[in-house]
Amino acid sequence: MSKAGRSELSTELREYDREVQLLKHGCSVLQWDQETYMPPAAAEERAEQLGLFETLVHDRIADEKLGELLERAGASPENPMGSEDLPPRDRALIRVLFREHRKARRIPRELVGRMARAASTGQTVWRAARAENDFSAFKPQLEELVALAQERAELLGYEEHPYDALLDQYEPYMTTAEVTRVFEELERGLVPLVARIAEAPQIEDEFLYREFPEEVQKQFGTRVLHEIGWPAARGRLDRSTHPFTISLGRDDVRITTRYERAFFNSALFSILHEAGHALYELGFADEIRGSALADGTSLGIHESQSRFWENLVGRSRAFWTRYYPLLQETFPTALADIEHEAFYRAINKVTPSLIRVEADEVTYSLHVILRFRLETALFGGRLTPAELPDAWREESRRLLGVVPERDADGVLQDVHWSIGGFGYFPTYALGNLFAAQFTEALEQELGPLAPLLERGEFAEILAWLRRNIHAHGAARTAAELVLDITGRKLEGEPFMRYLHAKFGEIYALQ
Amino acid sequence: MSKAGRSELSTELREYDREVQLLKHGCSVLQWDQETYMPPAAAEERAEQLGLFETLVHDRIADEKLGELLERAGASPENPMGSEDLPPRDRALIRVLFREHRKARRIPRELVGRMARAASTGQTVWRAARAENDFSAFKPQLEELVALAQERAELLGYEEHPYDALLDQYEPYMTTAEVTRVFEELERGLVPLVARIAEAPQIEDEFLYREFPEEVQKQFGTRVLHEIGWPAARGRLDRSTHPFTISLGRDDVRITTRYERAFFNSALFSILHEAGHALYELGFADEIRGSALADGTSLGIHESQSRFWENLVGRSRAFWTRYYPLLQETFPTALADIEHEAFYRAINKVTPSLIRVEADEVTYSLHVILRFRLETALFGGRLTPAELPDAWREESRRLLGVVPERDADGVLQDVHWSIGGFGYFPTYALGNLFAAQFTEALEQELGPLAPLLERGEFAEILAWLRRNIHAHGAARTAAELVLDITGRKLEGEPFMRYLHAKFGEIYALQ
Repeated sequence: MSKAGRSELSTELREYDREVQLLKHGCSVLQWDQETYMPPAAAEERAEQLGLFETLVHDRIADEKLGELLERAGASPENPMGSEDLPPRDRALIRVLFREHRKARRIPRELVGRMARAASTGQTVWRAARAENDFSAFKPQLEELVALAQERAELLGYEEHPYDALLDQYEPYMTTAEVTRVFEELERGLVPLVARIAEAPQIEDEFLYREFPEEVQKQFGTRVLHEIGWPAARGRLDRSTHPFTISLGRDDVRITTRYERAFFNSALFSILHEAGHALYELGFADEIRGSALADGTSLGIHESQSRFWENLVGRSRAFWTRYYPLLQETFPTALADIEHEAFYRAINKVTPSLIRVEADEVTYSLHVILRFRLETALFGGRLTPAELPDAWREESRRLLGVVPERDADGVLQDVHWSIGGFGYFPTYALGNLFAAQFTEALEQELGPLAPLLERGEFAEILAWLRRNIHAHGAARTAAELVLDITGRKLEGEPFMRYLHAKFGEIYALQ
Repeated sequence: MSKAGRSELSTELREYDREVQLLKHGCSVLQWDQETYMPPAAAEERAEQLGLFETLVHDRIADEKLGELLERAGASPENPMGSEDLPPRDRALIRVLFREHRKARRIPRELVGRMARAASTGQTVWRAARAENDFSAFKPQLEELVALAQERAELLGYEEHPYDALLDQYEPYMTTAEVTRVFEELERGLVPLVARIAEAPQIEDEFLYREFPEEVQKQFGTRVLHEIGWPAARGRLDRSTHPFTISLGRDDVRITTRYERAFFNSALFSILHEAGHALYELGFADEIRGSALADGTSLGIHESQSRFWENLVGRSRAFWTRYYPLLQETFPTALADIEHEAFYRAINKVTPSLIRVEADEVTYSLHVILRFRLETALFGGRLTPAELPDAWREESRRLLGVVPERDADGVLQDVHWSIGGFGYFPTYALGNLFAAQFTEALEQELGPLAPLLERGEFAEILAWLRRNIHAHGAARTAAELVLDITGRKLEGEPFMRYLHAKFGEIYALQ
């Protein structure tokens, strides 16, 4: 290709991509509004609006014109980054667009419509079934959703396991085999740790359920946000039923939280969690801003950033050495009689429980492993949807030592399956692993995290994350990132080391 | 056309239109967000997003496919409602779509782009020029905007006056000749009335500038909104720099206001004004909801609804007979020592002033007549942009008896010209005229307005507006509406009768 040809092609690709990104962000505005300020009567038509906008995005990604551009760039299954004489930034963009284009071409529009309808009905039916604790009411819908996911997996294609195709939607290039490997390692470490903690003297945390006025929670959360480096002019913090982060533009990344008047943890740790996601989306390098590369490279990597700020920072003793005096001043009625150490132990209390979203740092990944085992059995043909409730109870007993009496607290607890989101769960636990492995690398370079947190040197920490992770966006895959940063593949050991050190000390384990 | 053919055509037209409406409402979500909650750093990219979405709407309206559908329906310049054997609802839709389609085809995409850029630059330059009180800084931009509007007028076409084409964008089917006729009538009535009021004893209104806490203003405004029949589940009330109303869906019409701590009128009368717009958009008949017919039939008719609730209701003595005791309870510090009658007189104080948006009911229309005269002179070739500042001063002296010392308070005061909005101003005064003429018809049917307001019978009033005005949306033109409802063409007399009765009494004129 001539230099002029390369330059023209590069411009055409970037312009094509730019329009897609503008449309995607337009969808995000509608979604954000839906979850925050939309009046109730508008819900039904908003679904129609979003359906249309998402179809416009899908059509552009599946469009032959994009296929032709990618072909001119030399992209093929054997050479997904296109011609080697193109600049690296363009080749990374080609990889992302080629991947999305091929997926979109494989899923017929008719199936996109069926999936959207099944997800919409599924969520409605699931919500009622959970409220009634009636799995049988949800079963037919679940069967349809599983069948649709199987159909999707076959159309998308996979090498070893149908679940590979589903996982790949959220964690690109990751395989079922690799997740199985690290999750088995994790399980071997976590189950005995949980058992030892269960035998240790238990922690008192009733004071976390005292009175914490919402407006004051918001003020404190906002202050922390500013101090860790969250740029207020490029985002917002609002309230929603379930906390989330969403990008409405390259300089417009919004987070939400929920406030519980009688439980401290809910708002602040969600704020830190979502801030971690937001800092990732706000940290892309200038040269990729506003393009398809300005995106989390995988949900696992995204989750590593949220877990880092929520847990490795927000649930550390050092962070509260810095902030606990201010917290006591902020909530004198609730916390005046509580020592820093007692507070630190309370926010880190470990209890095997039924509900994933309420789980602590130690047991959380076991909830994910449970779902991963059931999903791979479902799509490996070893389990039917009808057998899920029993299988759930069995895995829960084996992994967590607790058994839900009601399906509402077991197989019906999460929204994901009701909207066809099979393959999503593993990314939550992968996030924990990536976070711990990255943090060891960060500490090798910057020294131990604790003194940095005590001194409030968040800017230095954030700069390291930017340089090593955020800046690259989707231009480096998760596997490339972890290898570049840590010199190793993804593994379970750093996370287990972190848990042993932290909880061994808290629970005075031998 | 066979019955099956008519039915198929009807379905195709409705589906085509439906998608356009969903896209338009998508744009509205982005606009609403831009004016209310968008973080500051997102402004530049939001303009890009909106530009793309608006182009998608324009392209669909200009699309040949729509042209073919309309041709199949028998639409032509001689027969803009299409074939007579189509049902009336389809024929009304065809009229609106044919009109929009022909306009869109006449404006090349390239000109749409130039206009958008000129408007964007124009607004920025105007804002700075107004702040600096420097007309010469804005003049080149204004010359370009006028030239572009002239080009647009020639492309759109007109029968008598180039200004007809511009006016028609906001007030469909209205002509410059007709506006000239009613405005001349209005001027002959208003100028002497203002002069007589100026000679009467003046009204005391300093207490309107006491302390009115914002949150309390909002509570009072919200209570009034509910009582007049504004459906909270189908809308929102938020805060913005300039109050506005916008439809984000058929059940999602949002209004905004601004709160001034030290001036009572600002928030409440804006709330009533915007509620009038919103009630119109929320009152379309079921059979036209969600279609191109679910729209104000003209800006003048739209403004008649906002002015009705703001002035004929909100600035009436009867309304405050009902609400003043509650208002005093709500703002005891500010209003405890003020009688109902003194309050009523204060909110109706008449003073010829320089600024349109601060004008009272009597002088407001004179501000509009001034702009209309300058605009028609500009586009009739009798005035150049360079001559505008002097012409403004001259007209202001003639009509209002006051002359701005600074162009910032004269020719630079409004945003409209800076974004190319020539032809918009007349609709503000037309709204006053429509409102007064409609109200006479309403009173003939329901009896005098005052007792209805005193008794809080807003439901009866709203039902009358729905039945006669709102339900029809754009299915009836403004001229058809006014003739159907009042049996006469639009005229200035009802408005003058209203002003003479109200202000004759307030100022004890002979």
